[in-house]
Amino acid sequence: MDIMEEAQQLVRDLLKLPTNYEVLFLTGGSTTQFALIPYNLLPDGEHAGYLDTGTWSTKAFKAAQSFGEPDMCATSKDKNYNYIPRDYRIDPEWKYFHVTSNNTIYGTQLHDLPDTGEVPIVIDMCSDIFSRKVENIERYGMIYASAQKNLGPAGTTLVIINKDLLGKTGRKIPDVFNYQKHIAKKSVLNTPPVYAIYGCLIMLRWLKKTGLTRIAHLNEEKAKILYTEIDNNPNFIPHVGNQKDRSMMNITFTLRKGKLENTFDAFAKNYGFIGFKGHRSVGGYRASLYNAMNKEGAKKFVKMLQDFSWRFN
Amino acid sequence: MDIMEEAQQLVRDLLKLPTNYEVLFLTGGSTTQFALIPYNLLPDGEHAGYLDTGTWSTKAFKAAQSFGEPDMCATSKDKNYNYIPRDYRIDPEWKYFHVTSNNTIYGTQLHDLPDTGEVPIVIDMCSDIFSRKVENIERYGMIYASAQKNLGPAGTTLVIINKDLLGKTGRKIPDVFNYQKHIAKKSVLNTPPVYAIYGCLIMLRWLKKTGLTRIAHLNEEKAKILYTEIDNNPNFIPHVGNQKDRSMMNITFTLRKGKLENTFDAFAKNYGFIGFKGHRSVGGYRASLYNAMNKEGAKKFVKMLQDFSWRFN
Repeated sequence: MDIMEEAQQLVRDLLKLPTNYEVLFLTGGSTTQFALIPYNLLPDGEHAGYLDTGTWSTKAFKAAQSFGEPDMCATSKDKNYNYIPRDYRIDPEWKYFHVTSNNTIYGTQLHDLPDTGEVPIVIDMCSDIFSRKVENIERYGMIYASAQKNLGPAGTTLVIINKDLLGKTGRKIPDVFNYQKHIAKKSVLNTPPVYAIYGCLIMLRWLKKTGLTRIAHLNEEKAKILYTEIDNNPNFIPHVGNQKDRSMMNITFTLRKGKLENTFDAFAKNYGFIGFKGHRSVGGYRASLYNAMNKEGAKKFVKMLQDFSWRFN
Repeated sequence: MDIMEEAQQLVRDLLKLPTNYEVLFLTGGSTTQFALIPYNLLPDGEHAGYLDTGTWSTKAFKAAQSFGEPDMCATSKDKNYNYIPRDYRIDPEWKYFHVTSNNTIYGTQLHDLPDTGEVPIVIDMCSDIFSRKVENIERYGMIYASAQKNLGPAGTTLVIINKDLLGKTGRKIPDVFNYQKHIAKKSVLNTPPVYAIYGCLIMLRWLKKTGLTRIAHLNEEKAKILYTEIDNNPNFIPHVGNQKDRSMMNITFTLRKGKLENTFDAFAKNYGFIGFKGHRSVGGYRASLYNAMNKEGAKKFVKMLQDFSWRFN
């Protein structure tokens, strides 16, 4: 209970949450939230908006079809999700508007959100929670994030929810799938994944001490170091052309000479860089700059890119 | 994937599972299974039997009411769950028959199961999985157990299921709540709680090396050591009178002189025994003898009970 309460309070402090917001540490990853969101917020026959910016958005949309009538208001699938759609219509009848904040596979990120009026935004921040500040918190009906990027070990999922939105579906929901029941039990409805939450607590203490302003600044600096090289070095091609849509967390790129991939892999490994192969749907490479990566790591990666260019091009 | 596959294979080996049984490591504790079982196995309007032997059975029954028509075929609530009901009717129309194997709060355990004919048994073995052998595995449609008693750290739940029972509800189930989808993805539908499953793997290797026959024998010996003292020492009163219904895992008892409880607590603490207060619904004490407790621990506990009796009675 002590671990849970301190972790919850640190989240409240970091995001300056109003009192009608509740903080839960649940289980089952974001994939479980994809189902719990419409289960708790979308009555049968009612509509919610879904912006499709990649694999995770698509899965969230699909899960909602089991409970209500999700509308996919826009998609960037036409260009393999290498941009964030704009100028779509927000339907004021929507119960909520669901977006994915950062798209790990494609390397895009939502840096601004449309004016949704009275429609609350539900945002999947799995891969960029606490990498930056969240402004105008009251626009959000719910913010959720599985732990395993910037928060802690896999096994728990942070859910921040405006409790005023709950209890309106008229649906029979088993306790364990019901946000209201978790809130009533202070996020200890049943035995929680103690170790994973303890990991989050340690990280949250560090985040509070460091401050989100400093964290955000650091992440922008790291991303700039990589994008500058990839934009200016003709041997690398960024997947996301539009600078406004680029992720600060996942920098995706391909080699101009694709046939050099095996050579590049071996060269990078020699510098200590592994595990940054791009997802098979994009190909190429994905350099991730989560909070755990420091500026020196980003600089070393660029040095490796430059050395590779000099040697093989 | 390596951790998952080895852990799954060890479960198969330990329980000698036929090929139509699948092994999953899911999340959300048994409480999540309380809901997923009827979600996946009980069509709207159809019936399933539930034996009510305590808090967890009651919760499982309640969750099933969101999906179908569970029948509570018998309950021992009349005597504060201090016995296991017998001679209830098994309805051959039931989709399954749900029981809780061991009742931690009350200290009862199902040592024999009724003949259910064609009705598959769904059994919650949270608190006695791998404390004993499971005979006649083909009687079970599903065996499930959250990790945190005999298996590993809290955060994952073992599910063993006969896949022939799945896909028959006609219900639209989001992937993450659908056992068939987890099976198709080899229990890695989304990021699993890696650390918790790794903990289970280490424990499963030890269980395989030790053997369930030896484990079961040890658990019987430990329980006998405690029950013998509690039955023969007039200062302690066992909660469960019927020896056939007694748990090998949780030995529940009260003091004959209830007013000595504070004195007993302090006395026991001096011996190094803490955290064995009974659940508030039963009162008194609960000594737990999960696999992690050795015979010396059980003997030391009895020594403490005897010393307390000599000194204060």
